[in-house]
Amino acid sequence: MTADIKFDPLPSWNDCAAKRAILAFLPRVTDETSSDFIPMSDRVAVFDNDGTLWPENPIPFQAAFGFDELHRRVKAEPELSASPMVLAALECDFGTLLEDGYAGLREVIALTHAEITTDAFRDAVETWLAVSRHPRFGRRYDELTYQPMQELLRLLDGRGFKNFIVSGGGVDFMRVWVERVYGIPHERVVGSTARPSFELRDGVPVLTKSLEHLFVNDKHAKPVGIHQFIGRRPIMCCGNSDGDHAMLQYTTIGNPRPNFGLIVHHTDGEREYAYDAETKSTGKLVAALAEAPARGWHVVDMKRDWKTVFGHTDF
Amino acid sequence: MTADIKFDPLPSWNDCAAKRAILAFLPRVTDETSSDFIPMSDRVAVFDNDGTLWPENPIPFQAAFGFDELHRRVKAEPELSASPMVLAALECDFGTLLEDGYAGLREVIALTHAEITTDAFRDAVETWLAVSRHPRFGRRYDELTYQPMQELLRLLDGRGFKNFIVSGGGVDFMRVWVERVYGIPHERVVGSTARPSFELRDGVPVLTKSLEHLFVNDKHAKPVGIHQFIGRRPIMCCGNSDGDHAMLQYTTIGNPRPNFGLIVHHTDGEREYAYDAETKSTGKLVAALAEAPARGWHVVDMKRDWKTVFGHTDF
Repeated sequence: MTADIKFDPLPSWNDCAAKRAILAFLPRVTDETSSDFIPMSDRVAVFDNDGTLWPENPIPFQAAFGFDELHRRVKAEPELSASPMVLAALECDFGTLLEDGYAGLREVIALTHAEITTDAFRDAVETWLAVSRHPRFGRRYDELTYQPMQELLRLLDGRGFKNFIVSGGGVDFMRVWVERVYGIPHERVVGSTARPSFELRDGVPVLTKSLEHLFVNDKHAKPVGIHQFIGRRPIMCCGNSDGDHAMLQYTTIGNPRPNFGLIVHHTDGEREYAYDAETKSTGKLVAALAEAPARGWHVVDMKRDWKTVFGHTDF
Repeated sequence: MTADIKFDPLPSWNDCAAKRAILAFLPRVTDETSSDFIPMSDRVAVFDNDGTLWPENPIPFQAAFGFDELHRRVKAEPELSASPMVLAALECDFGTLLEDGYAGLREVIALTHAEITTDAFRDAVETWLAVSRHPRFGRRYDELTYQPMQELLRLLDGRGFKNFIVSGGGVDFMRVWVERVYGIPHERVVGSTARPSFELRDGVPVLTKSLEHLFVNDKHAKPVGIHQFIGRRPIMCCGNSDGDHAMLQYTTIGNPRPNFGLIVHHTDGEREYAYDAETKSTGKLVAALAEAPARGWHVVDMKRDWKTVFGHTDF
């Protein structure tokens, strides 16, 4: 197979073990003469988003959206800032919001992600993306995807894989930009959801976001989300944190089909961020990393294995 | 456009208003020179299943599966038949099961669709399909899809539409056969769901079905399911009952894009079943039918408009 490659499909990757493993795995499952051949319908690849396809620092981008929305709302309704959790959010104090089972985060989500029509929410995300810049890199948030992972998505797509996002992020937040940014269609986005309500308002159909039946698509819930939304066990799983541990297990343990697990390890404090056991944002990585060698999960060392993080311009 | 057609893409349809409307709508939205052109990513078509793509008589096929499973279980655990609802199910008394807000049906579902691994459930459905025959037509249930609707699915697929099932049926039940029978992949099946649980059992990942957070994808819930699973407003919607009323409204009222609503009206007691306001199974059709003329929804008269119901062999 490697002899057949006329060009390098992963040009932003250095010649490393993970890259060689990817390039060995693909012909094994896509070459019809291979005994491990997998038909296209079963070539399901799942990708975590925050920390796997784009950064999750200094805070997850959706949290930045929520906090910015909250600033906007507090200007109009100053009484909101009576809540200590709203104050924490206004100060970007992510740690406080995550205490007590995410109580603060839930309060912020209720104020910024509910009691709003799905159309108005989509417009709010579009507007935010257009006017906001990442505090360190000075770029639009949706320009900060990892170039090596974009190459992997495109390589898999070209080999008949179906790429799915399986993220703790909100489905409604991600669908605004995921097709434009990753070429992944809306129905291939699995994420946190809640049930909107449907009504005819003045004779016109309206869906309004709520927090009812909230489904937080993280940790043990990721295989659940995969089953509910995709309905097929993945053969490839890419994550970066213990939030992806369960879906790495679901993809690779006892799977009768050949399969591939990959962990993006954040080792590059210079070009991006360096964290694993200790993180000020999300993305804690301990258990999955410890289990990786025994399971054969490929660990990508961002600093060592990637020629570039964000593409032609690393900032 | 009609002048360009070298063959009839809907050969099982008589020349009727609905067929002419379909054949006029498609070039309008798929021809790049048309002012109403819709890009492929937005060509979402949603289809109800029971009564729209296959029959729902004498009872919905999934109910037949559940009742057969119940018979099997009662043989091993005769004490189960102490419940009046189990008895009603064993006698295929669908009316009693639907009383009191579907209390009986829920009991049957709990006994046949929960506390079972997703793998074991899939195997049970496969086995049932292989050994069961429809009581009137004597055929495998999955051989009883409507030939004219199969032609419509294929026509849309060929014109760059994405076809989705949006059914009150269980997602896990449908995904067993939907790809083989309709050519629709697993992730394009929207239906009733509940959250399975995930665990490593003896070190191996296992998903177990439950009734937690049950989502019954019917009536007002259908636009909700469409939003959660597809994330895009459909431009075409095909249904047959008041259970599809809300998604017909969601597709066609105030939609800025050209759109198409279609109702399959069961008028053919000879080749299939005749019912609308009165039905012994599901599929009651009153409100949606009354609203059809004002909304421009196309009503298919199965007896008059379809040359055949099930294909080359009508039984």
